[in-house]
Amino acid sequence: MAVGHPLRRTPLWTVLRGLNLIESDLLDSMKNQVEQSLHNLIQEQLEMGSGEVAELCSEILLAGGKRFRPLLILLAYGTCGGRDFDEIMPLACAFELIHTATLVHDDIYDGADQRRGVATIHKKAGLAKGVIAGDWLFTMGFGLGGRYSEEIVEIMSKCCADIAVAEFQQFDHINDLATTPDDYFQIVEGKTAGPFAAGCKAAALIAGCDAQQAEKMYEFGLQLGIAFQLVDDLLDLYGDDRLGKPRGVDVYEGKMTLPIIHALTLLHGEKRDQLSEILSDFGDEKFTQLIDLLTHSKSIQYAKILASTYLERSEFALNDFEQSEYKELMLGIAELVNSRNS
Amino acid sequence: MAVGHPLRRTPLWTVLRGLNLIESDLLDSMKNQVEQSLHNLIQEQLEMGSGEVAELCSEILLAGGKRFRPLLILLAYGTCGGRDFDEIMPLACAFELIHTATLVHDDIYDGADQRRGVATIHKKAGLAKGVIAGDWLFTMGFGLGGRYSEEIVEIMSKCCADIAVAEFQQFDHINDLATTPDDYFQIVEGKTAGPFAAGCKAAALIAGCDAQQAEKMYEFGLQLGIAFQLVDDLLDLYGDDRLGKPRGVDVYEGKMTLPIIHALTLLHGEKRDQLSEILSDFGDEKFTQLIDLLTHSKSIQYAKILASTYLERSEFALNDFEQSEYKELMLGIAELVNSRNS
Repeated sequence: MAVGHPLRRTPLWTVLRGLNLIESDLLDSMKNQVEQSLHNLIQEQLEMGSGEVAELCSEILLAGGKRFRPLLILLAYGTCGGRDFDEIMPLACAFELIHTATLVHDDIYDGADQRRGVATIHKKAGLAKGVIAGDWLFTMGFGLGGRYSEEIVEIMSKCCADIAVAEFQQFDHINDLATTPDDYFQIVEGKTAGPFAAGCKAAALIAGCDAQQAEKMYEFGLQLGIAFQLVDDLLDLYGDDRLGKPRGVDVYEGKMTLPIIHALTLLHGEKRDQLSEILSDFGDEKFTQLIDLLTHSKSIQYAKILASTYLERSEFALNDFEQSEYKELMLGIAELVNSRNS
Repeated sequence: MAVGHPLRRTPLWTVLRGLNLIESDLLDSMKNQVEQSLHNLIQEQLEMGSGEVAELCSEILLAGGKRFRPLLILLAYGTCGGRDFDEIMPLACAFELIHTATLVHDDIYDGADQRRGVATIHKKAGLAKGVIAGDWLFTMGFGLGGRYSEEIVEIMSKCCADIAVAEFQQFDHINDLATTPDDYFQIVEGKTAGPFAAGCKAAALIAGCDAQQAEKMYEFGLQLGIAFQLVDDLLDLYGDDRLGKPRGVDVYEGKMTLPIIHALTLLHGEKRDQLSEILSDFGDEKFTQLIDLLTHSKSIQYAKILASTYLERSEFALNDFEQSEYKELMLGIAELVNSRNS
């Protein structure tokens, strides 16, 4: 099988394009408000004399990014009946700041030179300033979180602690061919889906929802987040120039993605040995062989079906919320992702 | 002049021994409560499945440490009339957790192998886990802070942001012989004195003080913190085995301490050139010469007098608070440090 790009032009990958494919004035306006709020926050800090640390952070923070997390938070708030967007914006920005903090620190130990198309902070200013800049972003995020109740700060804090625990687990499973689907889901729930879920739940509580509704929002975020990661795993096998996503980064790093874990579980004998060999000494010339093996074990197909299942579950979690333009947009994301047309 | 240890057996350095020299059942009991609370916090996290990240952090967090920050917070709370120590303990622990987070990250870019007598996290578990473990400690600290009002979280967040800004400044002044006393005090206020001040002020507010009293507590912490740093600068010139503090760490790292900044400003001609040469290519064999120059410029004497002045100012800030055992202990620290007997 030739290495093509079966996901391109399918809705599965649009979720990764920051909702750009959904035409909505409301969404555009929300994204602009997020950008403006982040910009203002940095500006205030610069005026207060934060100097270089704020400048370096702003280069990464304001260099674009999908703003997936803050947009989800705003939509969840709207779906829950919240209408005073000034009330929820600090939370949306807090999650984006903390997300960016983890990226700044990830890039350090991953040795990444670029992020969002600009030089990483540690590359530009050295290890020390990279570490401290990440800490500064965490601090800014938690500072915004402090505007809310103890319950909200606890959700944020638990979410960040879970990210750290999941990152530890992920390291321990690098190049670990015995990684189980259970390990995988634990890591994904901690690192990717947890923050989606925490953001949606906190937004629901701030909008005045009761505990049960907030739990539904948590569920939505969690299921969507897992689907998001599964799509990300699939994209790693094909890359995407338009997303600026090179092919095979995870495979080179020895990260155990679901298609690979699935194939390692299902393949036996010679084919299992082949896969094991490919993974232990990967190179670009082995890509076709890898995709052939993952196709043979139906692992790519399996990951696609799984992503659909999680997206359906996320839609289901919104059942009890009243219709609104916000809910339409939340469902639109899941629906668009789910209605795979290729 | 021979390199001796003029500070040993003087009260000036007792402040660095974690108040161990003040005999007080109250202080002992407070320290035990801090240790117990930190221990419980880690235990809870381990029970919740935080695993290795909590274990690695606990090795540093529970390896001793002076607990200067949490004890000051408890004393400030007591001095302000607070008596429900369960109310203030989360704040005291939050500051210790955040302080430890900065140490874990500092040790990474300083390349330190040991902290509090145990191996540093990055040394034991690698760069990635070291960075993430520091993030986890920040997260735990801010999580505890979320139990208080927005005002308290803002004080914590501003204090952490100021630490980051000051650390950036400190880097920019490494080996910078043109560093001014103004630069020095900006860095010290951000990095050392700011957290003391923020902790004392937050404790006052939690105890129910008004804004003016809280400002007095801030002042106490700020002045004491500056004195603390000046004493630390002096100790760097003599080292202290009992504090586990080797001599000359700052000089080797090119950190501009106040005695050195003072000497660089006052010395002229040949002696200035000598000092400049010594600093630009330092070695143990040049220690006697360095101390001779700093003595000649009266820089050591100057730093001692300055420390006294700041300690007097810190005592003065407590004038308006009612007498209590807590206030006695706060004054005792400053008094003991101030009544230099050699």
